[in-house]
Amino acid sequence: MPASPIRKLVPYAEKAKKAGRIVYHLNIGQPDIETPEVMLNAIKTATIKTIEYSHSAGNDSYRRKLVGYYKACNIGIDPEKDIIITTGGSEALLIAMMSCFDPGDEVIIPEPFYANYNGFANAADVIVKPVRSYIETGFSLPAIAEFEKRINPKTRGIIICNPGNPTGCLYTRAELELLKALVLKYDLFLLADEVYREFCYDGKEFVSVMHLAGIESNVVLLDSISKRYSACGARIGALISKNSDVMNAALRFAQARLSPPTYGQIGAEAAIDTPAEYFRKVKEEYIERRDYVVETLNKMEGVLCPKPSGAFYCIARLPIDDADKFCQWLLESFNHNNQTVMLAPATGFYSTPGAGINEVRIAYVLKKESLKKALECLEVGLKVYNKN
Amino acid sequence: MPASPIRKLVPYAEKAKKAGRIVYHLNIGQPDIETPEVMLNAIKTATIKTIEYSHSAGNDSYRRKLVGYYKACNIGIDPEKDIIITTGGSEALLIAMMSCFDPGDEVIIPEPFYANYNGFANAADVIVKPVRSYIETGFSLPAIAEFEKRINPKTRGIIICNPGNPTGCLYTRAELELLKALVLKYDLFLLADEVYREFCYDGKEFVSVMHLAGIESNVVLLDSISKRYSACGARIGALISKNSDVMNAALRFAQARLSPPTYGQIGAEAAIDTPAEYFRKVKEEYIERRDYVVETLNKMEGVLCPKPSGAFYCIARLPIDDADKFCQWLLESFNHNNQTVMLAPATGFYSTPGAGINEVRIAYVLKKESLKKALECLEVGLKVYNKN
Repeated sequence: MPASPIRKLVPYAEKAKKAGRIVYHLNIGQPDIETPEVMLNAIKTATIKTIEYSHSAGNDSYRRKLVGYYKACNIGIDPEKDIIITTGGSEALLIAMMSCFDPGDEVIIPEPFYANYNGFANAADVIVKPVRSYIETGFSLPAIAEFEKRINPKTRGIIICNPGNPTGCLYTRAELELLKALVLKYDLFLLADEVYREFCYDGKEFVSVMHLAGIESNVVLLDSISKRYSACGARIGALISKNSDVMNAALRFAQARLSPPTYGQIGAEAAIDTPAEYFRKVKEEYIERRDYVVETLNKMEGVLCPKPSGAFYCIARLPIDDADKFCQWLLESFNHNNQTVMLAPATGFYSTPGAGINEVRIAYVLKKESLKKALECLEVGLKVYNKN
Repeated sequence: MPASPIRKLVPYAEKAKKAGRIVYHLNIGQPDIETPEVMLNAIKTATIKTIEYSHSAGNDSYRRKLVGYYKACNIGIDPEKDIIITTGGSEALLIAMMSCFDPGDEVIIPEPFYANYNGFANAADVIVKPVRSYIETGFSLPAIAEFEKRINPKTRGIIICNPGNPTGCLYTRAELELLKALVLKYDLFLLADEVYREFCYDGKEFVSVMHLAGIESNVVLLDSISKRYSACGARIGALISKNSDVMNAALRFAQARLSPPTYGQIGAEAAIDTPAEYFRKVKEEYIERRDYVVETLNKMEGVLCPKPSGAFYCIARLPIDDADKFCQWLLESFNHNNQTVMLAPATGFYSTPGAGINEVRIAYVLKKESLKKALECLEVGLKVYNKN
């Protein structure tokens, strides 16, 4: 498994910090938003004498309460059959790939996509076939004909992330209906990473793969509380499907790793009671940040940044030769008032060699004041870099 | 991945409980011992506002403090290079297998062995070649000649569990020196699951694979705090090696799953300060239970149970035709004063078909009073079963 372009930058960021420079991190999906108090308090006040294993599919009380959460999302699930609590969305993805596919099987994923999908595909011995989406169309779903070109007897599934990391793109119902027809035509699995469900903007409708009638046995939903409650370190996710063969296979893998974390589950169960006001505020905050970031970027000479409708990322095309080089240069050789910015080169999100060479992903996970300084660094950096 | 014999019994145990019967669980490695207060308190009093991802290799402060713990075990490690904090010992095993071996590689494991090794081997696409140990010799290390018979060009490693689950067998220094010679002769990896390190009895010396001089690059230590602090649900383990290639590969897998659980790490770091008195009491308790269980079993007609020197398991040979059938019968059809006992059929711990057919694993993880009642059920059960 090769190191990703972001990880290659980490030592440069550490070096810059050691040298006393302030580094603004727009490179990671770690929000600065506070975790809901109801979640933190549940962990503080839990009366545990022995930290025991939970059920391999997760605590029964948590699964039952989650049914209510999903019901409010218009997703009907059975707490005993359709859901396995996982150690983060990461494990949900890994287990799903191992449960749905055999070694050597192929899956089609619109690129750019979350780079860790490669790690899980590698571990499950599954081959990723990318189908490209483009910045010019805001990374909307690639044409179905492009998917079909990649389908062969080894193709067993499609993986989507909606709303998208790293694109922020929110798929429309029409796009999902096209995918559904494709899934039916070739009897494929449709795995959907919907961990940014709570982060949809501008009144646009979120459509889950679980809302698509007639492909219930093909659909696997991958979820996580990391972003929803800003609780990435709790390591709680979920794998959901109506396909009993998939769930039986997934349970075997879940049993081999024994159980998801106890405290994370206690917190996650309590977090379901997070008041609506929390999400309203968080959404308001992200919309303000997004609008500021996208507007500021598009004002910079030669920069293109489509306005995303979901998640807390955007991808920007920069007037540069090579994003890997530029991002390293920002950390290694540049400073603006003793500050610099760390961005994620988009190359790590594309499988096609050379794709995304002049694109970066920006996570708007910092307060507006820091975002302002970070973007100032980027603007000045672009000018200095291009003069060299 | 087939369901294990223990898991097949779970529905029968649930049915028995629903019918109002008391079921004594001697089938699982979930101790009833309380988690150290210092660990529970650290979690209760943690001041967290946002539950963030930790470093993929675990919190720096935790890794640094662990160095002291291992130093006290006479194991010298570098906190930055030699250790990755994992999500339980399970993940340490899975990552170790994926990091050390290629698909199709073979590993030799003395059987009976912890059944979940099969699950991880399956996920890593590694082929397990069992080498048998026998109840008659207390499950001591199989003859080296038996290992050598199984070595071929695809053989890449050996996995041991010391002290052993499910056997309770503690390997001697002499046995480990034999393994070392073998590892050197064929340049194999030696993966050692030492999660029961704290549970060695009768003044016998615990020897770690990390104590074996001259095979530092071949050794991978797999650890967990689950048993040490009776904190199975915290999901904190560790993968330790001086082999930088292994550690680099392991870190990539660790990065793909992002981070180990936050609260588990906070608790685990605090738990290093657990007073010696805690372990003294726990050990005393386990020795008393072990002595009682082994003595009582050996008094039963036709039962053989070697006295183990470590962990909290023993394997007993029973005067029965088929342990799977007998264990199911105990749950399904037997009751003694409205009570019964759940045991783990040993067949699940052997890879060789038919091996262990009349053996069961008994985990002495209940208070003596419950153990007494559980063994009464077993004794009466054996008589009734053999009359039918």
